[in-house]
Amino acid sequence: MYKPKDSSKSPRFTGPRTFMRLEQIRTTQDVDFVVLGVPFDTAASNRTGQRYGPQHIRDFSVLLRPYNPDLDINIFDYCSGVDYGDIDIIPGNVQQTYNNIEAVLEPILNKEIIPVLMGGDHSISLGHLRAFAKKYGKIALVHFDSHGDTWDHYFGEKYMHGTPFRRAVEEGLVDVEHSIQVGMRGPLYGPEDIEDARDLGYEVIPMKEVREIGYANVMERIHARVGDRPVFVTYDIDFLDPAFAPGTGTPEVGGPTSHEGLEYVRGLKGLDIKGFDLVEVLPAYDSGQITAVVASSIIFEMISLIALKKKALLVGNLEKVQQT
Amino acid sequence: MYKPKDSSKSPRFTGPRTFMRLEQIRTTQDVDFVVLGVPFDTAASNRTGQRYGPQHIRDFSVLLRPYNPDLDINIFDYCSGVDYGDIDIIPGNVQQTYNNIEAVLEPILNKEIIPVLMGGDHSISLGHLRAFAKKYGKIALVHFDSHGDTWDHYFGEKYMHGTPFRRAVEEGLVDVEHSIQVGMRGPLYGPEDIEDARDLGYEVIPMKEVREIGYANVMERIHARVGDRPVFVTYDIDFLDPAFAPGTGTPEVGGPTSHEGLEYVRGLKGLDIKGFDLVEVLPAYDSGQITAVVASSIIFEMISLIALKKKALLVGNLEKVQQT
Amino acid sequence: MYKPKDSSKSPRFTGPRTFMRLEQIRTTQDVDFVVLGVPFDTAASNRTGQRYGPQHIRDFSVLLRPYNPDLDINIFDYCSGVDYGDIDIIPGNVQQTYNNIEAVLEPILNKEIIPVLMGGDHSISLGHLRAFAKKYGKIALVHFDSHGDTWDHYFGEKYMHGTPFRRAVEEGLVDVEHSIQVGMRGPLYGPEDIEDARDLGYEVIPMKEVREIGYANVMERIHARVGDRPVFVTYDIDFLDPAFAPGTGTPEVGGPTSHEGLEYVRGLKGLDIKGFDLVEVLPAYDSGQITAVVASSIIFEMISLIALKKKALLVGNLEKVQQT
Amino acid sequence: MYKPKDSSKSPRFTGPRTFMRLEQIRTTQDVDFVVLGVPFDTAASNRTGQRYGPQHIRDFSVLLRPYNPDLDINIFDYCSGVDYGDIDIIPGNVQQTYNNIEAVLEPILNKEIIPVLMGGDHSISLGHLRAFAKKYGKIALVHFDSHGDTWDHYFGEKYMHGTPFRRAVEEGLVDVEHSIQVGMRGPLYGPEDIEDARDLGYEVIPMKEVREIGYANVMERIHARVGDRPVFVTYDIDFLDPAFAPGTGTPEVGGPTSHEGLEYVRGLKGLDIKGFDLVEVLPAYDSGQITAVVASSIIFEMISLIALKKKALLVGNLEKVQQT
Amino acid sequence: MYKPKDSSKSPRFTGPRTFMRLEQIRTTQDVDFVVLGVPFDTAASNRTGQRYGPQHIRDFSVLLRPYNPDLDINIFDYCSGVDYGDIDIIPGNVQQTYNNIEAVLEPILNKEIIPVLMGGDHSISLGHLRAFAKKYGKIALVHFDSHGDTWDHYFGEKYMHGTPFRRAVEEGLVDVEHSIQVGMRGPLYGPEDIEDARDLGYEVIPMKEVREIGYANVMERIHARVGDRPVFVTYDIDFLDPAFAPGTGTPEVGGPTSHEGLEYVRGLKGLDIKGFDLVEVLPAYDSGQITAVVASSIIFEMISLIALKKKALLVGNLEKVQQT
Amino acid sequence: MYKPKDSSKSPRFTGPRTFMRLEQIRTTQDVDFVVLGVPFDTAASNRTGQRYGPQHIRDFSVLLRPYNPDLDINIFDYCSGVDYGDIDIIPGNVQQTYNNIEAVLEPILNKEIIPVLMGGDHSISLGHLRAFAKKYGKIALVHFDSHGDTWDHYFGEKYMHGTPFRRAVEEGLVDVEHSIQVGMRGPLYGPEDIEDARDLGYEVIPMKEVREIGYANVMERIHARVGDRPVFVTYDIDFLDPAFAPGTGTPEVGGPTSHEGLEYVRGLKGLDIKGFDLVEVLPAYDSGQITAVVASSIIFEMISLIALKKKALLVGNLEKVQQT
Repeated sequence: MYKPKDSSKSPRFTGPRTFMRLEQIRTTQDVDFVVLGVPFDTAASNRTGQRYGPQHIRDFSVLLRPYNPDLDINIFDYCSGVDYGDIDIIPGNVQQTYNNIEAVLEPILNKEIIPVLMGGDHSISLGHLRAFAKKYGKIALVHFDSHGDTWDHYFGEKYMHGTPFRRAVEEGLVDVEHSIQVGMRGPLYGPEDIEDARDLGYEVIPMKEVREIGYANVMERIHARVGDRPVFVTYDIDFLDPAFAPGTGTPEVGGPTSHEGLEYVRGLKGLDIKGFDLVEVLPAYDSGQITAVVASSIIFEMISLIALKKKALLVGNLEKVQQT
Repeated sequence: MYKPKDSSKSPRFTGPRTFMRLEQIRTTQDVDFVVLGVPFDTAASNRTGQRYGPQHIRDFSVLLRPYNPDLDINIFDYCSGVDYGDIDIIPGNVQQTYNNIEAVLEPILNKEIIPVLMGGDHSISLGHLRAFAKKYGKIALVHFDSHGDTWDHYFGEKYMHGTPFRRAVEEGLVDVEHSIQVGMRGPLYGPEDIEDARDLGYEVIPMKEVREIGYANVMERIHARVGDRPVFVTYDIDFLDPAFAPGTGTPEVGGPTSHEGLEYVRGLKGLDIKGFDLVEVLPAYDSGQITAVVASSIIFEMISLIALKKKALLVGNLEKVQQT
Repeated sequence: MYKPKDSSKSPRFTGPRTFMRLEQIRTTQDVDFVVLGVPFDTAASNRTGQRYGPQHIRDFSVLLRPYNPDLDINIFDYCSGVDYGDIDIIPGNVQQTYNNIEAVLEPILNKEIIPVLMGGDHSISLGHLRAFAKKYGKIALVHFDSHGDTWDHYFGEKYMHGTPFRRAVEEGLVDVEHSIQVGMRGPLYGPEDIEDARDLGYEVIPMKEVREIGYANVMERIHARVGDRPVFVTYDIDFLDPAFAPGTGTPEVGGPTSHEGLEYVRGLKGLDIKGFDLVEVLPAYDSGQITAVVASSIIFEMISLIALKKKALLVGNLEKVQQT
Repeated sequence: MYKPKDSSKSPRFTGPRTFMRLEQIRTTQDVDFVVLGVPFDTAASNRTGQRYGPQHIRDFSVLLRPYNPDLDINIFDYCSGVDYGDIDIIPGNVQQTYNNIEAVLEPILNKEIIPVLMGGDHSISLGHLRAFAKKYGKIALVHFDSHGDTWDHYFGEKYMHGTPFRRAVEEGLVDVEHSIQVGMRGPLYGPEDIEDARDLGYEVIPMKEVREIGYANVMERIHARVGDRPVFVTYDIDFLDPAFAPGTGTPEVGGPTSHEGLEYVRGLKGLDIKGFDLVEVLPAYDSGQITAVVASSIIFEMISLIALKKKALLVGNLEKVQQT
Repeated sequence: MYKPKDSSKSPRFTGPRTFMRLEQIRTTQDVDFVVLGVPFDTAASNRTGQRYGPQHIRDFSVLLRPYNPDLDINIFDYCSGVDYGDIDIIPGNVQQTYNNIEAVLEPILNKEIIPVLMGGDHSISLGHLRAFAKKYGKIALVHFDSHGDTWDHYFGEKYMHGTPFRRAVEEGLVDVEHSIQVGMRGPLYGPEDIEDARDLGYEVIPMKEVREIGYANVMERIHARVGDRPVFVTYDIDFLDPAFAPGTGTPEVGGPTSHEGLEYVRGLKGLDIKGFDLVEVLPAYDSGQITAVVASSIIFEMISLIALKKKALLVGNLEKVQQT
Repeated sequence: MYKPKDSSKSPRFTGPRTFMRLEQIRTTQDVDFVVLGVPFDTAASNRTGQRYGPQHIRDFSVLLRPYNPDLDINIFDYCSGVDYGDIDIIPGNVQQTYNNIEAVLEPILNKEIIPVLMGGDHSISLGHLRAFAKKYGKIALVHFDSHGDTWDHYFGEKYMHGTPFRRAVEEGLVDVEHSIQVGMRGPLYGPEDIEDARDLGYEVIPMKEVREIGYANVMERIHARVGDRPVFVTYDIDFLDPAFAPGTGTPEVGGPTSHEGLEYVRGLKGLDIKGFDLVEVLPAYDSGQITAVVASSIIFEMISLIALKKKALLVGNLEKVQQT
């Protein structure tokens, strides 16, 4: 049973900066979730430096305490988790990086442990999806972002941070009929940018529509779309407004607040989530750690969902036992 | 026909930082709008450094793509535009600067090209209005700001960034009966600060009232006030809350979000806008480029309005042709 | 009669940075309120540097003008006030610091002058409450914060910035039956963190409930709880969302905006407030002075309440005179 | 007798930030020197923001202790001094600012008090020299800088931060035959930039020559040039290399270190210095307060020279008394 | 004839940020040198963000004036030059980037124009050398750096910023017998890191030896090594100490000062330099523009060398004419 | 045998930030040295935030490679070492922190492992010396600093960061007759500040004398003073000039360069050093990581000394074996 270091005995700012002060160990024994970093930024089309994202999140995350009052769950009453460290990405080589991602994730997924991956630029999600598809087959996708990232290429390059969700469809990794994108906004090359994603099969709720229909309807459409299928959740920090998350690669104004950003995660409660990633945190533009605070809080909510699912299973099992 | 450099061929971060990657050229041939900087900050009463504002906006603006999904328009389907560079302002000499502003704007306005001016402290708007009045006569004014800028003088100085809209009335440049100020808030010298603006003839909707009546009513009052008269739009970035635009000279809390800040521009659709300025961007307080993102987005919306107007004209002409 | 330096004669950025350009003098003659700093940060469990908080607030506050349009009051029409400087805190020694706080406040409170104290980490509020209780007996508390600060100890240390409101009850300083905490959120050690505060006697409205019931109901409950008893208001700047106040020691996402943050102060109008503190401003994380702007605005609203109360007294007296 | 606040009783970071914790008072009684700010930046040709220079220096200067081990003098054993506050400069109006400078300096100089002025851009030195010339007649000038500031005008403007030492000659303020400039370097418009200064009558030791002849020879030439005439010392912080003083308006690489920068002041010992200024500190480019540290140290050395002179007088008088 | 915009007519901070305010145009007509950017950072093994290096240098370089007092030359008396913009690098694809570099350089080199290239990470120099070798055959190399950059690979990747000068030998691009590296220091993998470079044929003067033998001897060895062969100069900004150039990818303490850094360029006078690059400027770590100042000064010295060579030719020709 | 993670297999920026990528483990088996943090800042009299020092150093230290070319030693050919994590300091309680320091160091020292401690403010050195004295008896001290830190108290507080070396004498921890302080400079309270240290028994070489006698003589005096006694080396990062180490609590200009700062460590070769500390690194003032680079390099040199000593022992033993 792995849980955070006891902060009643040592101040939170002591010791190595692992996520939430979890033990830093590469094990698949007795763990329900692992947090791990993918510090890759070769595929960024605008600002670079996302390679420092995972450590930046860890640096602030030591402040996180175990009980989530919004979801009423004490994570470590139900879960064991570790900081698995970083995947050995290869700067400049996206394909080899994908291979390394798959190799690291395989033993984790084989034991049905839930990985929570910290990017890195968004290109890494293709590596994640390759690994998940190998284990779970085509997987549903819930995608929060200000960009759809379904462009075809940049200057001929096919594996960039704006292309993974087109590649994922082409490679047959996602169950696109049950996948959904939320939050797209900002200037585009043309109306086809959104339509292309729809043509690929994604349901898309651009930010403009999000504002019109409201949070409850968005969540309802996500649940309706995904149902009880296995799902991967990918969360680009630029989903949030730059005031709440300035430290990112391609900010777009007009996004959700930090509160709303957490609510979209909490609202996923009940889905059969097999893994998460949170990408595009870029410390060089994050003065005052504004982005680090919200990024670690988003991951905290993701882990809380894992605990809730675990709790539901335990309660379900208990009820079965009691009924017999 | 001038449009942004093709970003499918070169990354957005290459080449000189012109606005939106437009060609940097001083021409009035075949252009519908020009973006130009007015890097003047001599008249600032608090922080200085607005002289670096135009380049700061340009630096981020290279990320802008041509299609506006909120207004459903691809700018360059209807418009041609250039980055006209900066006006040669004279640091320390506001009157000579006004002369230079007028001299640069004259040939642009004479060809009915729409200028989008980037400040610089707000004193420059008086120069803009002198040029516009010469061409269009008294012009209506739509003014978004947290301050009314109708004070009389500072320490005896009459041409400061807090005085242009009093001077503009005194000089007979604005059609004050059809002019309106929106967003005033924060501590004042006294209630007369707002009343003085009204006594000058402006309609004023302070931020407190904005919150009470809501966005739709504000826009309705703007349209009612201006009607179909020629209008100049001046936008002080401190209209926004400092969380969304920290990089400015005299921030006041309690302002609109970035989303709202764009909506106020979009809502001007249909007005007969002859020119725009966006002022008071101050990079030294803009860590993480938070302000640069929203400032370039606001200008993007301004240009989108120009394109919409051009489109309406084309459609109108086409319809006339078809009817005959 | 003390009031801010005349800014029509000298620019706001000239001269020493006192709060709001008030005279810096230690007097209790002819003053209605004093602003004073408590630059202590020994008791911070996470980031340190709050010792630079008071000066950081003063640095920006010189921009404040005297008239409050939201509350329609010109402060210095009714009040006289000074910047009393800083209390000589002792770094590393919280008890001696408490003694010094009490010693400085005693003559101020004895003349029923209203102090507005700028922290410093939140541990200082225990010193404040000791001084107020000596003068007023058990005093009601209105507490805005993202944390309840009723933990028992850290690593055995009983006087930390997370413990003052437990100590205050134990020491019999607060009228806990008429005290209320608002805004608690973020990860906790367990559900007992909130319940413990309630067990101590506080009414607690966590942020989640604030969002559910809305501002008006929150204010109603505050007024109902406090009634006409003497009250001390303590405001931790981390009550606000980190986008609006990044410069603080233990930020928690999902908090109020700057506008809302001011409204909670304005809504206290009518209470019999004997003193205020604003704590946990930490400049090292406040790039662009975002936090300084809102912190000085909050204090401006606090002082405006003092002026309103003074005005009400004057008007009441006047009416009495007129009636006779 | 005025001296710094006792730092054995209150931490240095408490209280208002006056220079060196001196009392902030406008008096000419019982003072040997005054430190005062001139927060003017209208005449800057490149970066602006020097108006925040004086307060930036004060902010760090609270760390200064009274004994100078390099010159072996405890300042306040021989001197009394105060922080005189800032001169009410007029942003945008250089001539009126000069008038205000003269008006403030007149009573100080009339009592032969030594002013130490903190800029502000270098244009202010013309105001200083006007005041000193009125009292002392043509005064010798020792000028440390990377630029000679003897250009004629910028865009027709004659009173800019690159022109004061030409104007000073034209106005007959400096005893140019006994004046000297040290440290000039960096790209110029042409070789005439240096020659022009010589043609005006200045002795000039460019940085290249400083390196060739060495510190001792430079000091010897300064002493030979000035002799026992009354002298004003003007020190532009950009005399130092940008690594040691990044926070300035027009940095030039290849300058002295901080140690050397202090030695040039110490080496002035024995001159009959009537006043000093230190100009062009610009906080927006001074991350980590690197420049503030050295700027306050330079002023500390200047004040130490005042104390040494006072001590020499006392000792001289004492010796005379003893001889009789 | 191309030269910088006249700064007596417009302030240096106006207009687009081209290098030194040179015209931004892609021409090989009537130019002696071109400045151009190579904003590539895919091959960085540590920090990324060098893609913003060229613009960062340009931003500060507008302050450069045309006359070099250290080398006594007014550049534009002898030379014409332009800012050629940036090469369209391909993020993530080093080979295609090399191709693009070669394609852009070819017409420039064919006309014997001297390019001054601004990086970008150091991997780009391999592209530069390919282009130069095509024109000039094996070319001598003068290399200032804290690292030799002759490692073989990183994680199997052969084209990284630490490998170009091994690749260049393997590809037969450099005349290694007449090439020299200066300044190597800091922790290594082993003594072989230096020896490997020597085994490849380079002469190496590590920083330790530089300090022992002194500047004059270093320059003598460079001139002896290169002689009158065509030479390419590559300058990694991390050659300088981090205090003088913090904004770089892999800083190493113990390097030269900014003054020394310029002297190493000036000392190359007389060599037959065919091209220059200055690499590894990384703005995210360059608070206060410390690095930008020295980087633009280094390029200024490089261009001055071009002018000196041009002048020598003119004088030589003139003398020949006069002799006949 | 513990050594850094292999950087030919994973990029240096991957994984947890331990010192130099050493394994993070608390073991005293098979280790020659341990690096550990002491993140305490309660006793700082000026700036706080030194608690973030150890992690700040670790963050950059991942760039360190194992071979030291200046001392010609590959550390891990002779040594095994780990990152021992941080000591659980107690914020606000210096005595309990001293106890914890002693408790952690005891098992390390008992096995004659060399600890390299990263501060934290300088008060921690008293804790270190208590632990070392318990093991080694009175120990010689080599102390590099700009302050002697032998003051008696601050506001009555005896255990502050300016007092440890007086307390250490009073407590009989240091062999003061063989102890030496180097580098003192900057303003003092009086000449007695230096004399007091001498009266306590320390040899003191102030910076002024360092410059006069030069590096070689300083090192000679250190070796003469210490001889072959067991010695503890304490290094305050403010020994360096602020240009080379801005991120510290009480910077003083006029200090050594980074190169010199390393040389002072290298020169200690041959002393019987039992432990080291490096204190007062303060990240909030370290923009661009300038200080982190030099701080990690200083520790690298310290560890290199450990390796040299180990090598000498091995060689000595080998020679003895060969002789027999």
